[in-house]
Amino acid sequence: MHRSCNAFKLFQKTSLSTRAALMRTIAKEIEALGDRLIEIAMRETHLPEGRLKNERARTMHQLVSYAAACERGDWLNVSICTSSPDRVPPRPDIRKTMTPLGPVVVFGSSNFPFAYSTAGGDTACALAAGCSVVVKAHPAHPETSECVAQAVARALEIHHLPKDVFIHLHGASFSVGEALVKDPHTQAVGFTGSYSGGMALFNWAQQRKQPIPVFAEMGSVNPVFLFNQQLSTDVDAIAQQYADSITLGVGQFCTNPGIIIGLDTPALHRFKEQLAMRMNAIPEGKMLHDGIAKAYEQRASRAMTQKGITVLTENSRKPTAKNCTPLLLSVTASNFLENTILQEEVFGPASLIVVCNDATEMKRVAASLDGQLTSTVIATAAELKEQGELLSIIQQKCGRIIFNGVPTGVEVCQAMQHGGPFPATTDSRFTSVGPDGIRRFARPIAFQNFPDELLPDELKAANPLNVNRTIE
Amino acid sequence: MHRSCNAFKLFQKTSLSTRAALMRTIAKEIEALGDRLIEIAMRETHLPEGRLKNERARTMHQLVSYAAACERGDWLNVSICTSSPDRVPPRPDIRKTMTPLGPVVVFGSSNFPFAYSTAGGDTACALAAGCSVVVKAHPAHPETSECVAQAVARALEIHHLPKDVFIHLHGASFSVGEALVKDPHTQAVGFTGSYSGGMALFNWAQQRKQPIPVFAEMGSVNPVFLFNQQLSTDVDAIAQQYADSITLGVGQFCTNPGIIIGLDTPALHRFKEQLAMRMNAIPEGKMLHDGIAKAYEQRASRAMTQKGITVLTENSRKPTAKNCTPLLLSVTASNFLENTILQEEVFGPASLIVVCNDATEMKRVAASLDGQLTSTVIATAAELKEQGELLSIIQQKCGRIIFNGVPTGVEVCQAMQHGGPFPATTDSRFTSVGPDGIRRFARPIAFQNFPDELLPDELKAANPLNVNRTIE
Repeated sequence: MHRSCNAFKLFQKTSLSTRAALMRTIAKEIEALGDRLIEIAMRETHLPEGRLKNERARTMHQLVSYAAACERGDWLNVSICTSSPDRVPPRPDIRKTMTPLGPVVVFGSSNFPFAYSTAGGDTACALAAGCSVVVKAHPAHPETSECVAQAVARALEIHHLPKDVFIHLHGASFSVGEALVKDPHTQAVGFTGSYSGGMALFNWAQQRKQPIPVFAEMGSVNPVFLFNQQLSTDVDAIAQQYADSITLGVGQFCTNPGIIIGLDTPALHRFKEQLAMRMNAIPEGKMLHDGIAKAYEQRASRAMTQKGITVLTENSRKPTAKNCTPLLLSVTASNFLENTILQEEVFGPASLIVVCNDATEMKRVAASLDGQLTSTVIATAAELKEQGELLSIIQQKCGRIIFNGVPTGVEVCQAMQHGGPFPATTDSRFTSVGPDGIRRFARPIAFQNFPDELLPDELKAANPLNVNRTIE
Repeated sequence: MHRSCNAFKLFQKTSLSTRAALMRTIAKEIEALGDRLIEIAMRETHLPEGRLKNERARTMHQLVSYAAACERGDWLNVSICTSSPDRVPPRPDIRKTMTPLGPVVVFGSSNFPFAYSTAGGDTACALAAGCSVVVKAHPAHPETSECVAQAVARALEIHHLPKDVFIHLHGASFSVGEALVKDPHTQAVGFTGSYSGGMALFNWAQQRKQPIPVFAEMGSVNPVFLFNQQLSTDVDAIAQQYADSITLGVGQFCTNPGIIIGLDTPALHRFKEQLAMRMNAIPEGKMLHDGIAKAYEQRASRAMTQKGITVLTENSRKPTAKNCTPLLLSVTASNFLENTILQEEVFGPASLIVVCNDATEMKRVAASLDGQLTSTVIATAAELKEQGELLSIIQQKCGRIIFNGVPTGVEVCQAMQHGGPFPATTDSRFTSVGPDGIRRFARPIAFQNFPDELLPDELKAANPLNVNRTIE
């Protein structure tokens, strides 16, 4: 981290346009890796070519769109209060912008080998903020990570920037991560992965002499609330939409709908049947690595044996570590409410339908849930309007609410919020998707009565960067 | 906290204008307390009438200006990405705003019995964000706090809002605070006070099943860097300015300049003499309470006996718990660098001059410092221009940099940053002064494909609140 800290001292002074140019070149260099990168990633992750090509495009879009946001400068949240020398006491000239936190440690995720790994969202945001980055490669795709890291290194070289602005490390053991988080030079941490992994990082970071921010995205069951009238309009189509969403990428998405909460009506019964039938028709998929497959088998088996659970998908297709078949379970709300195991995420193509007697019971189920990345409501506008209290509960529990859709598919845009109350993430006040993610790696700083020529460009009287500014 | 949580459920749904109206009424009700409030506060805090009247005006200004900011809605950081149904896959409509965190616990500070206590900055920001508030009164001014709490209660009644939106508790023991922070309903904590107090709250909050944000402002020595040319222009005036700043409010300000770093030149010698002489002329003052006075005596005595320390103020005026005289010390940079005790804040009218041999040594002193609320540079523009490296170090260490001024006097405005790297505060990414402080108590939430009529007003197509919005 000492090397990263030295590189930071230089990199923090780069202009927004230099950082943006670097990020665009990283995108180009990743593209230039061509089919070789896709082939390596296919071998290491078992993800299909089409998915990986889409994810590579998403990664490049992140780099390029965050570069544009970096230059636009809205993330700097510039405010200016000009002086009033005649006031008693005189009001000074105060100008506020953002300054980078310092060296950032990024832990690549296994389920997005490009978009939330080596040169993924966290790295892009940290570079845009002016931070140096140390990536710990995910041990499930070390060659993919190495290949992307070389693309980043080439981009730094092209822009004559210090190579240590981006440092890439390997290591399967816990101890590398621990040393990185505890290093006094480290000023922030980005992580996407399991609850246990995220909490280990969080606790190390909080126990340091100087505690530091940890942005850990740790999991979510993404509850879906079904209302009768909307469900009845086209139950078969909704069932197909959810069969696809639950099994997308062998269910290995943080926004996978893991709990579906409905009212005990004929429409829900039809939905259960249809969803189970359509999930039975989905072929087995190979998971990212043996650890995830084994965890899926264990969590799924545990869920299947809980009190009151009915297995709706074909029992002959019971998931095993080698045989990752989709799984649909059902339980009554009263059984669900007394068993917190059923709230735990089964990371993979599994979902649990919770059947409520009435809207009051549905509210109780909603209130019992932990913090989530997303919640979804399947309802007519009229139905939703009647559910003001439920909507308030949901709003307290998540970072994004979807109306008549599926939670999978996280748009990369300014208005996206990808982050939710604990334990979905360790810091619900920030997003890990969209250019607002840059704000995670910077903090405000005010300059009082400074000579204009020594101010950061975005604060100068002439506004040479032409950024949006609030002037008081 | 259960009562606060129930009140929150209703209060979170109030409109921005209702919250703003409440805050304006609180200001009016505080004003209506008239001289009685000032008299009680004078008796409890030993602060003079003029200072307390100014602080009451500041408190009202905070309430009224944060109310305006609440209604203006910039803090909501609204972004809208409209849908593109023709894109493959179709882009959904996504709209992002802020939602309040939940019940907030505020610990009043002793040194600002109005402005950072009961209805002070933290309470004003939390109410603006839509949070309910539980205030633990500072045991050094319980009657003042009770009086202000009654004003808040009357304002809630006038606006027909639940009384539990604001709950006021007393308690001198640690255990009340511990119970409040550990209560699962509590969603954030605001605190201004000592390092040990702030860290106790921070650690309790991080060790909860659900960790929560703690905004603790814990202390700062606010380093001042003196350069020769500027110092020489008017050394006597600068000495007077600093004698006033160091002793303002008997030195009981978080922005009190506790360390002054200069170069070993005739101008600095003159400054030392002049500052000592002017500080000797300042009468003794009575501190806020016995605990603070005793801590001042202990810290001052300890600092005076460190290796290489010279006492510049009159030794006959040595501080005691009953006799809070200003204290000016001096030490060489080499002695300072090897003794971390000299970095510790002596809360009161004391300052330490650190004499450096050259600019390189000054940079080493700067690099050795902990995180700070502020740093000040006394220099000509030409001198500052030569100190690019020092300025980078300073920028990494603080939340506000002042050019040719004093750190005391924290303007309440949009561009203010009052907060700095740990250990000055526990979260350098937020400010506790100025309307941006509202952002501490809210988090982003996105609405995807929502019916317009069910969106929060600030997200509706017609923008009925007329807030600034970023549209993509």
